[in-house]
Amino acid sequence: MKNSRFILIVGCGRLGSQLANQLSRDGNSVVVIDKDEATFSNLSPDFSGFRVNGDATQMVVLKEAKLRKADVLIATTHEDNVNLMVAQVARKIFCVPHVLARVFDPKREEFYAQLDIDTVCPTSLGADLFLRAVARGIAGQEGAQS
Amino acid sequence: MKNSRFILIVGCGRLGSQLANQLSRDGNSVVVIDKDEATFSNLSPDFSGFRVNGDATQMVVLKEAKLRKADVLIATTHEDNVNLMVAQVARKIFCVPHVLARVFDPKREEFYAQLDIDTVCPTSLGADLFLRAVARGIAGQEGAQS
Repeated sequence: MKNSRFILIVGCGRLGSQLANQLSRDGNSVVVIDKDEATFSNLSPDFSGFRVNGDATQMVVLKEAKLRKADVLIATTHEDNVNLMVAQVARKIFCVPHVLARVFDPKREEFYAQLDIDTVCPTSLGADLFLRAVARGIAGQEGAQS
Repeated sequence: MKNSRFILIVGCGRLGSQLANQLSRDGNSVVVIDKDEATFSNLSPDFSGFRVNGDATQMVVLKEAKLRKADVLIATTHEDNVNLMVAQVARKIFCVPHVLARVFDPKREEFYAQLDIDTVCPTSLGADLFLRAVARGIAGQEGAQS
């Protein structure tokens, strides 16, 4: 497939596994790392990639997952510090071309940008959507029953 | 202010406090409930609403926060079960016109919809944005260095 890439995903929770399933389905080569083996049960039966059970903040685990060959790394754990560390290692040491990280603290986004790391912040996203929903609700109540 | 509403927010973590600060700034009357008093430090100095320190799954706390008078309730805690319970109480017992809840498990969204509760799922949102960013990165790499 033309756009097939080697994509490494750190964290196999709800977000990581959803990404792994979709990106694998799209024809990419996907490796998922998680230190909790039980999380691999989140992967769908048609997931065709590899699972690496280990702590992604350890170099030996990243090497086992073949980080050096990755076109894309996505850090999706629940800990900003873990995501930042793994993303930095991927970008600066392993020169992975495209690095993305989940960041819970919106204040950190600018810092990540300076490190050439793309970020997605569920907190800011969620806030935007709730504010829009509240505004829609108010508009609805003015016209008819919500 | 024309669109000023009485808005009750459960959970004063990153998401809850961001909503509370913005909705208060927009001229609404806001009450925030959290069982951990320390989270109120997330509120900005210009937050003009009320803080209720208590467990929102207890009726006495919801009454203290004047849920009966609320135009909008937003459940933002980190626990889907807490959000679901509070949202149901608000909608069914206190007849709050507009109820919104954060839901981490995407499979629950349909169930909430049946209960007339609006939902925002950061997991699905985050996954969408990561997938788009990966697609953009691939497009970028084909044209020039990412």
